[in-house]
Amino acid sequence: MVGIGLLGLGTVGTGVVEILEERQEELKFLIGEEIKIKKILVKNIDKKREIQLEENIITSDYNEILNCEDISIIVELTGDLDQGYKYIKDALNSGKDVVTANKAVVSKHFEELSSLAAEKDLAFLYEASVGGGIPILKRLKGELILNKITEVQGILNGTCNYILSSMFNKGLDYNEALKIAQDMGYAEADPTADVEGYDTLRKLRILGTLALQGKIDESDILLEGISKITPFDIEQIKSIDFIIKLIGEVKELEDGFIAVVQPTIMKESSYFANVDMAFNSIVFLGNNVGELKFSGLGAGKLPTANAVLADIVDIVEDTYRKGNPLGERKLNNLNEKLKAEYYLRISLPEEQEGKVFKAIKNISKKLLSEKENIAIITNEIEYLEIIKLLSSLEIDKNNYFIARIIK
Amino acid sequence: MVGIGLLGLGTVGTGVVEILEERQEELKFLIGEEIKIKKILVKNIDKKREIQLEENIITSDYNEILNCEDISIIVELTGDLDQGYKYIKDALNSGKDVVTANKAVVSKHFEELSSLAAEKDLAFLYEASVGGGIPILKRLKGELILNKITEVQGILNGTCNYILSSMFNKGLDYNEALKIAQDMGYAEADPTADVEGYDTLRKLRILGTLALQGKIDESDILLEGISKITPFDIEQIKSIDFIIKLIGEVKELEDGFIAVVQPTIMKESSYFANVDMAFNSIVFLGNNVGELKFSGLGAGKLPTANAVLADIVDIVEDTYRKGNPLGERKLNNLNEKLKAEYYLRISLPEEQEGKVFKAIKNISKKLLSEKENIAIITNEIEYLEIIKLLSSLEIDKNNYFIARIIK
Repeated sequence: MVGIGLLGLGTVGTGVVEILEERQEELKFLIGEEIKIKKILVKNIDKKREIQLEENIITSDYNEILNCEDISIIVELTGDLDQGYKYIKDALNSGKDVVTANKAVVSKHFEELSSLAAEKDLAFLYEASVGGGIPILKRLKGELILNKITEVQGILNGTCNYILSSMFNKGLDYNEALKIAQDMGYAEADPTADVEGYDTLRKLRILGTLALQGKIDESDILLEGISKITPFDIEQIKSIDFIIKLIGEVKELEDGFIAVVQPTIMKESSYFANVDMAFNSIVFLGNNVGELKFSGLGAGKLPTANAVLADIVDIVEDTYRKGNPLGERKLNNLNEKLKAEYYLRISLPEEQEGKVFKAIKNISKKLLSEKENIAIITNEIEYLEIIKLLSSLEIDKNNYFIARIIK
Repeated sequence: MVGIGLLGLGTVGTGVVEILEERQEELKFLIGEEIKIKKILVKNIDKKREIQLEENIITSDYNEILNCEDISIIVELTGDLDQGYKYIKDALNSGKDVVTANKAVVSKHFEELSSLAAEKDLAFLYEASVGGGIPILKRLKGELILNKITEVQGILNGTCNYILSSMFNKGLDYNEALKIAQDMGYAEADPTADVEGYDTLRKLRILGTLALQGKIDESDILLEGISKITPFDIEQIKSIDFIIKLIGEVKELEDGFIAVVQPTIMKESSYFANVDMAFNSIVFLGNNVGELKFSGLGAGKLPTANAVLADIVDIVEDTYRKGNPLGERKLNNLNEKLKAEYYLRISLPEEQEGKVFKAIKNISKKLLSEKENIAIITNEIEYLEIIKLLSSLEIDKNNYFIARIIK
């Protein structure tokens, strides 16, 4: 019997309990071991739960779990940055393997926790922290043995993808689409982390650091969210037969890397354009295996719980890769050299439009609209040059929207 | 040091040698073991090779490899059905782990070799036999622990996909497209196994048997290839904004399964429609993880060799799943109930057209063409009913083309 200490009994935690129950027999038959949740840490013991639990399994005292000798794996699903970090560190220091879905903690403390686990010869697995149900991290770590990986890209946030898909397919405006995403349980009550791109950024930090085998920190990643997009933008993008997605990308260049999370415009027939609604997708490029593309449900109770349990099974069967998976390459951030064609829309009072229009003519390759909203496709240009230009024109952040165009 | 006995030094075998050399240092560092090819079995020792080999490493005597105590893993890459089978069986019986890319052998002897390996407590891995570089089988086996899998679909043959993509995108006819595929090294000199769908069928047999956990044999799978498709067909399919792919599909129904390899027509915006050229793709559906989609290069020296080496690394690190992965469910073949709308084109001498046209009016939902070629979209109808009708009208196999339509 393998004992689990579960930290947090929200959506994903409940899913873990449910799948363990549903697959009890298969698990016992296929891995020859019973996996049993011995203790569950919650904030409020008296809260009513949607699932039936054994008596005395719930506690609000983490020490009770740490000191329980029957528990060998801690499954951290609190979603809390500070507490999650403390819980994971304490678990490893107490000699327990750790599985987590907490992307905020993994992103912020990736190097420290990875080396602590390696030093203690314990598992530290976090498949569910990136891409929900998509089994990407284990594969990425596996391919690193046989490949130099130079590129990883992804649609990494289901909420953003759902909002953009709804705006595009159903003609909703941003707030309507967000409201439906919230009603359907995709978006949180406070959607900032999703729509401003922080969630995508954290996942990209994890993917990029693994892929390039050198630290790519949160602050290394250029970030733009989707909250400023309007139906007017969608219309313009449709008019040129393109589609828009929030893409995170890390790419190795000759003497460094670029790392960026940005609304991105692409042809309707391109791969990412067809990753619809609540799906996520991750693509990486190895020098031997070539391009590998994965897609699946990026969030949700059962897909995410499935990923958590896949990590647990890997520990129980001892089939996870040992050692610290992070490399020690020193990598140069070349984001200032990031160059592309961009879609740029500026919304201003009529009296200011003339001046702005003149100023951006120099970087314009194609004019899409000059009335009410100015919208252009730029020449190939450095992103930072556009930002400089906008700032020199004193255009407020809320009055423009910018999206990179990829071929 | 882990010793490898390599059987066959064709394209994939050469790739294995090359990657092992390129990744020597990383392999040693990351898995703490040197992987070394000790012997290579070839038919003709004197043949000139494109790579430099150590002296005396080549042999034409399999016993020399079987008896070599330094060799613990046999990597079978002969591509030959009968010999491959014998080599694998002998290897397992001699206590050696086996990795193979030989889909013909795995498909034909799946149950026997799987249970022999399990009985001997040895590895029998065949990731490269399905989907080339796509890491699908290991994942599928992993997800089976946590999921009931009810559906697996795929574009499983790069040659067919390349031919159909070229016909569609470049307006080539079938023979021109085939010729280019051969010139580019995708298609064999004798392309029968690819274009008539046998290669897809074998891969589907392997995938389906694993996914549904019960034997789905080659003879269980309804088969149609792509060799009869004409530019006229492509035109008709384009005219209704659809695209065509060769799809293999196994699906569990309430009281059995369907298993089919068929040219398949779908909307341009659907997932498979955008799997282009030499890419393969596999999709499966688990009750917990949801739909997972994988795509990558389906063939080629390095991607396939990469998959072979991933299996080898799994054996060396002891991270592969132990035991027989095949289930013992008894499954009912329900192919006679397979029902869909179909695209049907019949080409006949003018004098026969009238009679045929009358006869197929009953099953027609939409008429696309009645001159020179009769082309229709059928009502939803059982596939076998169409075949019966065609045979009652004495229409030769070479005079029609049929493709299933999926939503």
